[in-house]
Amino acid sequence: MRIGWIGTGVMGASMAGHVQRAGHELVVYNRTRAKAEGLLAAGAAWRDTPKDVAEATEVLFSIVGFPDDVEQTYLGQSGVLTADDPPGIIIDMTTSRPALAREIAEAAGGRGVRSLDAPVSGGDVGARNAALAIMVGGDRSAFDEVLPLLQRLGANIAYMGPAGAGQNTKMCNQILIAGTMIGVCEALLYASRSGLDAQAVIDIIGKGAAGSWSINNLGPRIVAGNYDPGFFVEHFIKDMGIALDEARALGLSLPGLALVHQLYLAVRAQGFGRDGTQALMKALKLLNGQSL
Amino acid sequence: MRIGWIGTGVMGASMAGHVQRAGHELVVYNRTRAKAEGLLAAGAAWRDTPKDVAEATEVLFSIVGFPDDVEQTYLGQSGVLTADDPPGIIIDMTTSRPALAREIAEAAGGRGVRSLDAPVSGGDVGARNAALAIMVGGDRSAFDEVLPLLQRLGANIAYMGPAGAGQNTKMCNQILIAGTMIGVCEALLYASRSGLDAQAVIDIIGKGAAGSWSINNLGPRIVAGNYDPGFFVEHFIKDMGIALDEARALGLSLPGLALVHQLYLAVRAQGFGRDGTQALMKALKLLNGQSL
Repeated sequence: MRIGWIGTGVMGASMAGHVQRAGHELVVYNRTRAKAEGLLAAGAAWRDTPKDVAEATEVLFSIVGFPDDVEQTYLGQSGVLTADDPPGIIIDMTTSRPALAREIAEAAGGRGVRSLDAPVSGGDVGARNAALAIMVGGDRSAFDEVLPLLQRLGANIAYMGPAGAGQNTKMCNQILIAGTMIGVCEALLYASRSGLDAQAVIDIIGKGAAGSWSINNLGPRIVAGNYDPGFFVEHFIKDMGIALDEARALGLSLPGLALVHQLYLAVRAQGFGRDGTQALMKALKLLNGQSL
Repeated sequence: MRIGWIGTGVMGASMAGHVQRAGHELVVYNRTRAKAEGLLAAGAAWRDTPKDVAEATEVLFSIVGFPDDVEQTYLGQSGVLTADDPPGIIIDMTTSRPALAREIAEAAGGRGVRSLDAPVSGGDVGARNAALAIMVGGDRSAFDEVLPLLQRLGANIAYMGPAGAGQNTKMCNQILIAGTMIGVCEALLYASRSGLDAQAVIDIIGKGAAGSWSINNLGPRIVAGNYDPGFFVEHFIKDMGIALDEARALGLSLPGLALVHQLYLAVRAQGFGRDGTQALMKALKLLNGQSL
């Protein structure tokens, strides 16, 4: 099948590579062409705009940066939906606004195109190992048709409902992580301040009712002073901002998420936007007059 | 060995039973004698005060309700440390104030008694199955001596440091749970309000980086409207209050814990103090004008 791929950053390049190795013909576009070189060297074709990719392909994936980039990709002047002969199915895998996913689905429908919003979790490692979780909203028949392709990318794939449902599920994921992370950082700060060996604390409390992926995977990095990014603070701020906007639109007060979002803004204000999300600890340390 | 056991409630009765079945001679006291009947029927001896239990035993355990009960048990008028011939080792397994653990250890030292603070996690099920996590602070040699007894009660046992270190570790556990729970409840509230199937959301996000014991075990109960207690709201409020008091004494600001504590106070104010901790959802629903 001729498959379009827009967005060949850290995530996109790995993911498109899996599709390519499965024997599909790739047609790619990325804002920075250099990041597509690996795929091009392996036989992918290049096009200069999303519209041109759309003209040349039957199924089109995108995974770009921010909701504005998604909007530009699909609804912009040289966007996918301006193509004379658009793909039958489009799949945006960026973490983006649920309302935008619905808007794109509606515009796509007007062109006879079926749309899916399919954000992922699992980070660069998950993308590389084809072990992503993929949360899908949109047209059910399109989901069934592209499922074999999605199975090349992820290990844990769920159809969640109509357009926007994939994005909303990803928001649930991020809200859950936000709460867990404040618990992780406050627990570890209390541990060190009360004179405990913080790693020993993780070792015992991480196995029981307080256990989580975050305490067991990011906790040890915090203890070791390792703030290298698995997932960037600034991307997490973007996601929490989307969740808070959407919650406000739903008339929903989420005080925990709002607090954690504010603390992450403080992390970024201190210049740590390109740290990993475990750098929430830095805001809590600064708040408590500790050195970093 | 003749072992004293003070506090034969839901947790204590199960735990003392394991010690008894290991072949030790039990001497028990509980505020409400009826709750000790099972142990007495199985051969335990009864005494009318903690002091009397202390006179009769070599190692003495306690697991009672609140820090005031712990203080009364050890330092009160008929307390353990008023015994003429106190046990060589005392082990308080109540979740209690770290400062009180240090106070008891000091008073015990003055009587030639070695003291341990050894709070547990794992709830009534963990107590029944001898699968508790046990976090121990205090005298290291005493820990080594009673470890075989602790191994009758728990599967995951760690020596954490001097007196109070067990309690401080338990506080870390509760701080971590507090953060995780606000994430769980806000994520599930967002899920239902945005039209998702909340159980389907748990099924996909519970496996990845957002995963935790809480979302995978308490999440489905929330979705099912099941607020039966694994661990009472009012006990969790007690524990968070201890953590906040101790943090204040350490000069430590923990904004996430403070917020969650306030929301749990609202849960109790609405009359749900005897619900399980997943009833945090009730505070968030009320906050958002939803019916329960």
